[in-house]
Amino acid sequence: MIALEEKILKEGKVIGSDVLKVGGFLNQRIDVEFLMEMGKEIARLFEGEKITKIFTIESSGIAIAMAAAVYMKVPVVFAKKNKSANVGDDVYTSRVHSFTHGNTYDAVVSKEYLKSGDRILIVDDFLARGNALKGLIDMVNQAGAHLTGAAIAIEKGFQGGGDELRKKGLRVESLALIDSMNGGKIIFRH
Amino acid sequence: MIALEEKILKEGKVIGSDVLKVGGFLNQRIDVEFLMEMGKEIARLFEGEKITKIFTIESSGIAIAMAAAVYMKVPVVFAKKNKSANVGDDVYTSRVHSFTHGNTYDAVVSKEYLKSGDRILIVDDFLARGNALKGLIDMVNQAGAHLTGAAIAIEKGFQGGGDELRKKGLRVESLALIDSMNGGKIIFRH
Repeated sequence: MIALEEKILKEGKVIGSDVLKVGGFLNQRIDVEFLMEMGKEIARLFEGEKITKIFTIESSGIAIAMAAAVYMKVPVVFAKKNKSANVGDDVYTSRVHSFTHGNTYDAVVSKEYLKSGDRILIVDDFLARGNALKGLIDMVNQAGAHLTGAAIAIEKGFQGGGDELRKKGLRVESLALIDSMNGGKIIFRH
Repeated sequence: MIALEEKILKEGKVIGSDVLKVGGFLNQRIDVEFLMEMGKEIARLFEGEKITKIFTIESSGIAIAMAAAVYMKVPVVFAKKNKSANVGDDVYTSRVHSFTHGNTYDAVVSKEYLKSGDRILIVDDFLARGNALKGLIDMVNQAGAHLTGAAIAIEKGFQGGGDELRKKGLRVESLALIDSMNGGKIIFRH
């Protein structure tokens, strides 16, 4: 998505060779109008897939998932990180290690919100090593639901998670796919 | 908002006399189409207020904030919940005690995303004792921004937070305001 690449070049901040900060439009501050355009593009990419539900993980996946869901006219379900008082015992969980945040957590979702008859699209803001995505896939599999693919706002291709999942046959669509950020210069894959 | 009251009566689950579970449409599973209707109503209520930014807190505030922002054509900024008190100088922070979750956290937002020229609307999914809302108000005040009011999906009026803030002169608009849930029977204030 060219408009996203341009926005990353204009507003993103590269730190070192592997951190990209886009808090000005994708998380923390959400450029809602722009996210709706991204959501429309995700809906276009997965048109005809008869998706029944979008699945994401708190917190920064929720906004882009909402945007896609508006155009796809399906509900959003989000997994929580760690178990909170508001989640019942009847849950699917998957352990996720976040390299970005240097921690490990349990992704949790109530069983009642993922069903075997569902056709799921996973949506998230970032894909790097793919650990959060693998946790979401694990929970979709536990539910016996059908996974149609994953739609990601920004993939850091050089961290390998996306290509690893593509090799396993998963459809992974990233609106911007970055192959390198060496020396602060962002190179996109097309 | 009558449609919300009806949805709460139909899909909400009262536990004890003070817990209302609406995970089936407002958080965890998000009924996006319905949330967009709620967002439209929030936009109608605050029409003419020249709002420049919606401010909320992760995670469950993000979806309703997004919905309102689509109709108000403004960005959303969300505060993060940081359990460690170790935050930098470039942020506004406010300590919040959550009775619901039985914990205390620092709400944190980067200073660059709240500015003195902003006209802020706070949006959140729930209002009970009002501690999260007070934390958000505190951060708006730290930024020197103008607070136009707060829009809440569901207020548990019997827990007093909303009326306390109204008495102080804040405009608090709740799409559904519950006065009592004794014996599992939900009574709305109109």
